[in-house]
Amino acid sequence: MMENKGYIQVYTGNGKGKTTAALGLTLRAICAGKKVFLGQFVKGMRYSELKAVEYLHNLTIEQFGKNCFIYNEPTQDDIDRAIRGLKRCEEVINSGEYDIIILDEINIALFYNLFTSKEVIDILDKKPENTEIIITGRYAPQEIIDRADLVTEMGEIKHYYYKGVKVRKGIEN
Amino acid sequence: MMENKGYIQVYTGNGKGKTTAALGLTLRAICAGKKVFLGQFVKGMRYSELKAVEYLHNLTIEQFGKNCFIYNEPTQDDIDRAIRGLKRCEEVINSGEYDIIILDEINIALFYNLFTSKEVIDILDKKPENTEIIITGRYAPQEIIDRADLVTEMGEIKHYYYKGVKVRKGIEN
Repeated sequence: MMENKGYIQVYTGNGKGKTTAALGLTLRAICAGKKVFLGQFVKGMRYSELKAVEYLHNLTIEQFGKNCFIYNEPTQDDIDRAIRGLKRCEEVINSGEYDIIILDEINIALFYNLFTSKEVIDILDKKPENTEIIITGRYAPQEIIDRADLVTEMGEIKHYYYKGVKVRKGIEN
Repeated sequence: MMENKGYIQVYTGNGKGKTTAALGLTLRAICAGKKVFLGQFVKGMRYSELKAVEYLHNLTIEQFGKNCFIYNEPTQDDIDRAIRGLKRCEEVINSGEYDIIILDEINIALFYNLFTSKEVIDILDKKPENTEIIITGRYAPQEIIDRADLVTEMGEIKHYYYKGVKVRKGIEN
């Protein structure tokens, strides 16, 4: 049954809407009775979206980053956290407990070489057949794009940050 | 206060993730205590996402289309429904009751000339200052892009439809 098979989707590019699309996918999937795991790499901030678990009981969110972005070089702590996060996601994927697993900003972890594309692809290759995987973050490496079934690139045509608009609670985070 | 001002965001392009990003924005905004109105043009299908109102009490969804897409030429009924939808959205925007108003697939309504860009822009020009407007749908007309503060183009790099994957409940709709 083609419809029950799980695919690998990638949302990349420098435009707004990647994590946002993953959140939208989450909402739609939960409305259809599915169970979703959202793992956030390189993020440990108290975003508004973390409250979503209060509304959506079939949603689990775990964060694997720190309370700030990586500047310049990642520290050993950044690497350790990311590797632990990847191991955790591997367990979650293999458990077959979730219909959809979101590896949010995993492309950024790859960009900083916190682990390798090969490690990620090895996990994807062993995923249960019905599990859908959503990968987000700018700079998706070519190997991930090649492995994915669907790839959307969010292109920034116009952004209000250039106008001096600041990050707003409930809109950007 | 720059942070309280409402902007106009557009999600267009032929890639997956436009309405999905709008749903993600909805979820994040509601987590932050905001009130969201989602108006769907040219859509009247019983999508999974309609159930979101059961989970998110600050969300209102209204559909202005029929139970099928427009094929070839729009009928007078398609035009009438879209115009009624636009009037309804104008009322909702002017009421100032909602923090975020999503005009989902309004670009498709414009593409089919169900109403004009000028009519839409006249409404945008009079919106309350703090109201955020989200416009989705492929084929965003240039006038709408010019009027927007943020524009993201979802580019289709790879799509599994070409592999024969069918639309799946809880993933695509």
